[in-house]
Amino acid sequence: MRVFIAGLGLIGGSFSLALRDRGLAEEIVGMEATEERAAEALRLGLVDRIVSFEEGVASADLTVLATPVDTIPLLAVKALNRVGEQQTVIDMGSTKEELCEVISQHARRGRFVAVHPMWGTEYSGPEAAKHGAFVGRTTVICEHERSDADALAQVEKLFTAFSSPMVYMGAEEHDLHTAYISHISHITSFALANTVLEKEREDRHIFDLAGGGFESTVRLAKSSSATWVPILMKNKYNVLDVLREHIHQLQLFRRMIERDDEAALREMIDRANSIRRIIH
Amino acid sequence: MRVFIAGLGLIGGSFSLALRDRGLAEEIVGMEATEERAAEALRLGLVDRIVSFEEGVASADLTVLATPVDTIPLLAVKALNRVGEQQTVIDMGSTKEELCEVISQHARRGRFVAVHPMWGTEYSGPEAAKHGAFVGRTTVICEHERSDADALAQVEKLFTAFSSPMVYMGAEEHDLHTAYISHISHITSFALANTVLEKEREDRHIFDLAGGGFESTVRLAKSSSATWVPILMKNKYNVLDVLREHIHQLQLFRRMIERDDEAALREMIDRANSIRRIIH
Repeated sequence: MRVFIAGLGLIGGSFSLALRDRGLAEEIVGMEATEERAAEALRLGLVDRIVSFEEGVASADLTVLATPVDTIPLLAVKALNRVGEQQTVIDMGSTKEELCEVISQHARRGRFVAVHPMWGTEYSGPEAAKHGAFVGRTTVICEHERSDADALAQVEKLFTAFSSPMVYMGAEEHDLHTAYISHISHITSFALANTVLEKEREDRHIFDLAGGGFESTVRLAKSSSATWVPILMKNKYNVLDVLREHIHQLQLFRRMIERDDEAALREMIDRANSIRRIIH
Repeated sequence: MRVFIAGLGLIGGSFSLALRDRGLAEEIVGMEATEERAAEALRLGLVDRIVSFEEGVASADLTVLATPVDTIPLLAVKALNRVGEQQTVIDMGSTKEELCEVISQHARRGRFVAVHPMWGTEYSGPEAAKHGAFVGRTTVICEHERSDADALAQVEKLFTAFSSPMVYMGAEEHDLHTAYISHISHITSFALANTVLEKEREDRHIFDLAGGGFESTVRLAKSSSATWVPILMKNKYNVLDVLREHIHQLQLFRRMIERDDEAALREMIDRANSIRRIIH
């Protein structure tokens, strides 16, 4: 299989490593936003060659769109415009509603599979690519009924090889759930980092005291704006909905602490503890 | 050295294991809130015997108070009432202002050292005790100038043996910084768990999609109310101050997303990224 990956950062780069580690591709070619990052991807062995988008799509059995989500819908259309009956295009973006709407009436919609592996780290760029990504992490496939059976089967075979269990969802449903579970965590973490940076004028104290749980909560705050501004904007209404609920929950905590209402505070924390039954 | 540990949960239990692993105590005795937990602590080898508070303090070279923070000030006074010139009492609590005020005029104030190791996990009880705790984590010593030189040196020797670097602070300063860095992270995490549990009626989706950053941000939400209600109440004013700032930061995110102000959003995220220079 010949693979073309547009976007050789954290996700595209890790996808390439997963293919290579399992010997699933004869050739992997790719493109990157800047020459510097393209050179880095080559140096790291993420791709055999750097190619143009047109050249990449034309020559590939599988085209993978792993660029920031705001660029994916147009690239998806351009890729579908260029593929034949034996070629497949997938994306790995964190938002799907607009994408699926944009390609919905394309003559070759069936050659597209909308894919979202629920894996990531707070790092970005080619050097963030990791071996063993996706293992044990769920991959969401959206609107699978709109994909041709052979294209879907091809993707399922890959993620099975990556040991990533798959779930199937509509695009709207996907964007709703990822807002709840992934996107809001990032906003919380960004806001927490800014809170502490605002309040703590001395880095030294943050550094010394960070053992007290701060590190894990703030880890995601290292995530890049190039990735996250597009995700938050593309999933605006769902994100705002969850953000309002989150602010409301924090206001409840605030009110209970203000009123010394220990019983209510205990109840809120005990309720939060029930996340244990889901996340181990 | 003979050691008495009041409270054999996560912190007290891990302190015992740290002493045992380094052969620093001839005998470790302790007490726990319930018979069941006391039996568990014995079974796990955290203590050689279960004793009463009075018996424990009387017989120990070092008394360690590792109970919930709301119980520490009174226990500290009761312990100091019972110790002689060669005995030392320390606490391991997360808030210090009230404690240090309560013992400030005690005739044997010098025998007390106020200690806070910046280490913890989201688990509690004797079975949460871990080997290798405190290693590489900062331990804060509060009002060290109020402790007798030999008592302070004894504590410093222990934490040096545990490979835990020490920093020195006033009690007020300590409570302020821990509110910023540790306490607020827990509230954020509790509130996030409740947000998602509120919004996501189906556990299945949370479970499937949790790879997207949710797990790390919500980890602390598993922390027990028995530990955290007292901490939040004892540090009420500092916690409220940071909580207000945190809600404000989330409202800024909300407003920018509502207004599609991508430039401002990018700036907020880039600012949050600067936490990288502190937390690696």
